[in-house]
Amino acid sequence: MGAVVTELGEIDSPALIVDLGVMEANLASIAWLVASRGIDLWPNIKGHKIPALAWRQVRAGAAGITCQKLAEAEVMVNAGFTDILVAVQVVGAAKVERLRRLAHRAHVMTVVDSLAGATAISEAFDRHGGTIDALLEVDVGYRRCGVGAGDVVELARKISPLPGLRIVGVMAYEGHIYDLSRRDEVLAAARTSYETLLGAASRLRAAGIDVRRVSVGASAGVEVAVETPGITDIRAGSYLMNDRAQMAMGAAVEERCAATVLATVVSVPNRDRAVIDAGAKALTPTTIEGVDGYGLVAGGDGLVVGRLSDEHGMIDIERATRPFRVGDRVRIIPNSHTVVFNQFAEVYGVRDGRIEAVLPVAARGMMQ
Amino acid sequence: MGAVVTELGEIDSPALIVDLGVMEANLASIAWLVASRGIDLWPNIKGHKIPALAWRQVRAGAAGITCQKLAEAEVMVNAGFTDILVAVQVVGAAKVERLRRLAHRAHVMTVVDSLAGATAISEAFDRHGGTIDALLEVDVGYRRCGVGAGDVVELARKISPLPGLRIVGVMAYEGHIYDLSRRDEVLAAARTSYETLLGAASRLRAAGIDVRRVSVGASAGVEVAVETPGITDIRAGSYLMNDRAQMAMGAAVEERCAATVLATVVSVPNRDRAVIDAGAKALTPTTIEGVDGYGLVAGGDGLVVGRLSDEHGMIDIERATRPFRVGDRVRIIPNSHTVVFNQFAEVYGVRDGRIEAVLPVAARGMMQ
Repeated sequence: MGAVVTELGEIDSPALIVDLGVMEANLASIAWLVASRGIDLWPNIKGHKIPALAWRQVRAGAAGITCQKLAEAEVMVNAGFTDILVAVQVVGAAKVERLRRLAHRAHVMTVVDSLAGATAISEAFDRHGGTIDALLEVDVGYRRCGVGAGDVVELARKISPLPGLRIVGVMAYEGHIYDLSRRDEVLAAARTSYETLLGAASRLRAAGIDVRRVSVGASAGVEVAVETPGITDIRAGSYLMNDRAQMAMGAAVEERCAATVLATVVSVPNRDRAVIDAGAKALTPTTIEGVDGYGLVAGGDGLVVGRLSDEHGMIDIERATRPFRVGDRVRIIPNSHTVVFNQFAEVYGVRDGRIEAVLPVAARGMMQ
Repeated sequence: MGAVVTELGEIDSPALIVDLGVMEANLASIAWLVASRGIDLWPNIKGHKIPALAWRQVRAGAAGITCQKLAEAEVMVNAGFTDILVAVQVVGAAKVERLRRLAHRAHVMTVVDSLAGATAISEAFDRHGGTIDALLEVDVGYRRCGVGAGDVVELARKISPLPGLRIVGVMAYEGHIYDLSRRDEVLAAARTSYETLLGAASRLRAAGIDVRRVSVGASAGVEVAVETPGITDIRAGSYLMNDRAQMAMGAAVEERCAATVLATVVSVPNRDRAVIDAGAKALTPTTIEGVDGYGLVAGGDGLVVGRLSDEHGMIDIERATRPFRVGDRVRIIPNSHTVVFNQFAEVYGVRDGRIEAVLPVAARGMMQ
């Protein structure tokens, strides 16, 4: 669509912008935090889906990467990554076969939480003489996937004898801490989650199961995780970009949010609103419990995108301290950056107002 | 990823499925309704973004198509469409130039609601000796874009003398009717909106402005629109697929929802939930006022996807009348199909369980 752009001011909107300086600060702080405790970081790359950024995470010390879709894992293996955790239940013959083929090309681990799921994977791998490492997923309170902590030994006893699949540890995703807003509550809920998981690990070991890995997830709990003896792997991902969800939990401040959606004011029909060209298809209709609106105007004195339609966002400007005019450009911190990255074909990496990189979101929109 | 699939049962999940028979029934009923009143249908194709489906709409009698992004319009002009309304404010030099180039290749109309926006378009077209037809957008209660009905004459008087831009009518989007649930309230709000727009049209004509087109939008109001003398154009789009938002307004029933997301149950960790492989990145976190959850299980006795995370959906199965097992496949009617179509690279057109077409969502994810 025209000449190569080199300045932030030349990027048409809506566009997804990453402030590289902020991202690097986020990268360095967690890398240091985790490495100093001897814990392995397996960053979940679902938030950005960009091989070049995953490489930055590995070069900063990550032991491997976590993918949340088989397709993401395929993209990352194609990009040269060798240690990958597929942290979702792989179900269905087509996907199990893809997992098997992928495991020929890299060290791939996966997760299981049911005998039916484990059996299908076991049979596929064993048929070809292969074996895959798997983590038992334990529900620690989020009520998504994962066997209940009280049932984990019974399930492990059934899965352990299966050929082609080797239990190497346990994992949990403490996603329910995202429903909390007070920082002390977030950290307390994370602590309880990790105790639940470590309790399950102990019972498994007592039952003779080899639990080498104890893997936890959310960025917002990472400072508790690194202080909890027994946790070996952290799959945090949001720390790299941060967003309003992290801010809402007290896990980030506005200045540490690296990703923003660049938007243009296309209409100011009244004193109450400035309409921008970023709506539900750009910012996504993600809401955060107790937090107003769908995005925060960066450097905008707390102004928010209060309403969304498919292609438009409405910034509430009644309390604005500066005028908004048609043609003005704003940058919006999204509620959830991970859903937003999935919307954009590419990301502009910007430093000091200059474009340093245009990164294709290589695993964007891959559903399977 | 393997052999060509021909049966619904062979499609891996998550995938976007269109029941072609249902779609054709929806297409026929509105085409008949509009044509019998001598009104022009300009269907908004933002809901599907697929040229092949837009052709179906044109062959069923549509006068032209409406696009909600300049990039959508470019895709549709490239696909051979000749009459296109770009129903958003085109703001910024780069976009105005794209609009100008597009208008060389097809009959393109656009909308304006500010002197600043109109002036920029005027100057760009006039500089090259061209003229574009434009509709004045009027706010009829949705509080998005659009000049207030009381200010429309004043704005038109300023815009009318501008070269390169010719006002040919008025338009409004009555999106606030989506916030209502009782059918009589929806229709009453639509009626009031159309009266507001027609009042603005009358005052413009009294002021000497040539108002040939009076264009309204939402599918849910179409039965009122066709009975309202003075309305010339209807831009409805949702009628083709329908979704839970249309159902919530009483504008559709489950059997008229053509688009579903095919998903697989990947975990049933407890009696309260079945976890599927379609989450916020597939179903989108769109909520509907007064309606539970993020999607309805098709043919599922009212079961809903009660919670979403990025890659997972949790179906509340406590009141299920049948068991859910790992590996089961379900089809989910999304809350908003238009945001969902933007997520998928292609759509499977299915008739009687067989795949009749695999349609690329050609304008998917085009942000600008």
